[in-house]
Amino acid sequence: MKEIIAIIRMNKVGQTRSALAEAGFCRMTATKVMGRGKMLKDLALLDKATDENREIILQSMLKGGRLIPKRLLSIIVKDEDVQKVVDTIIAVNKEGHVGDGKIFVLPVTDVIRVRTGETGEEAI
Amino acid sequence: MKEIIAIIRMNKVGQTRSALAEAGFCRMTATKVMGRGKMLKDLALLDKATDENREIILQSMLKGGRLIPKRLLSIIVKDEDVQKVVDTIIAVNKEGHVGDGKIFVLPVTDVIRVRTGETGEEAI
Amino acid sequence: MKEIIAIIRMNKVGQTRSALAEAGFCRMTATKVMGRGKMLKDLALLDKATDENREIILQSMLKGGRLIPKRLLSIIVKDEDVQKVVDTIIAVNKEGHVGDGKIFVLPVTDVIRVRTGETGEEAI
Repeated sequence: MKEIIAIIRMNKVGQTRSALAEAGFCRMTATKVMGRGKMLKDLALLDKATDENREIILQSMLKGGRLIPKRLLSIIVKDEDVQKVVDTIIAVNKEGHVGDGKIFVLPVTDVIRVRTGETGEEAI
Repeated sequence: MKEIIAIIRMNKVGQTRSALAEAGFCRMTATKVMGRGKMLKDLALLDKATDENREIILQSMLKGGRLIPKRLLSIIVKDEDVQKVVDTIIAVNKEGHVGDGKIFVLPVTDVIRVRTGETGEEAI
Repeated sequence: MKEIIAIIRMNKVGQTRSALAEAGFCRMTATKVMGRGKMLKDLALLDKATDENREIILQSMLKGGRLIPKRLLSIIVKDEDVQKVVDTIIAVNKEGHVGDGKIFVLPVTDVIRVRTGETGEEAI
């Protein structure tokens, strides 16, 4: 079993959930987070920077830049469903721009459904 | 070492923390999340649906239904304490209804206490 | 690949992000959480307690004490960068007091960049 964590744009949550539900993955947890990927935008700005504002941009980069509100979706799936879920998330979220998001896959040792005590894949 | 993640009802956080503290597990992190389990409620509704509203319910299901505010508790424990923590969480949260919650167990490679630099089980 | 989760004081987020960016780690996710470590403060209070208030403190401890607002930072790194990131976080957050924070290291199976479809270490 795996936990699939997707960090996506706030305005993509609804579409992503619909697409996942249609693919048969209804269970998920959504969390408000602040995210920041690589500083490609800042590097591009730096290229075009005048001597005057280069230092300001550089300082901003060294401080780690601005954090942007994102949504974190967590979906627990069987190993054989990882690719399907990842593909579904990419299909909805890929716009070809920085900020499209990241997906992380983590190993899960066990899952327990509180109501029934079921464990493992049956509890997903 | 393992991370135990419990997604539970908001009104069960206090009781769950008390029970865990009494069992010797005081350290935890709590996060506000929006959760959604399997769509059993919607499936039941669908069974009773008239032709008129069946389509509406079906569309709502395909969109992934409504997300419900939940609390996510994260507790880091030694391998030998997993069962005790899981049992404690179930004892407080099991009401026999959909929405009782889920528990996930994830492997943890290392734990570090910032104050002392202690690592591994000593840092839990 | 590993996920490094740091639970730190709210007022340390800016400094921690700057230090990590200077060390070359810009990508991260920040989440508001409520945290609680071991009850050292409560144990100390209990030692000094009069008979009158001992019971109140004990009850408070049994309820798991008060949760304190914290920030959770999540950083995904290559295995060989774990120590550097951990050291950077400790350097900024270690004040020698209870509440300095905890760091957890979790295994990561895969990382996918949504924009390009890159996977593994290239996608970090």
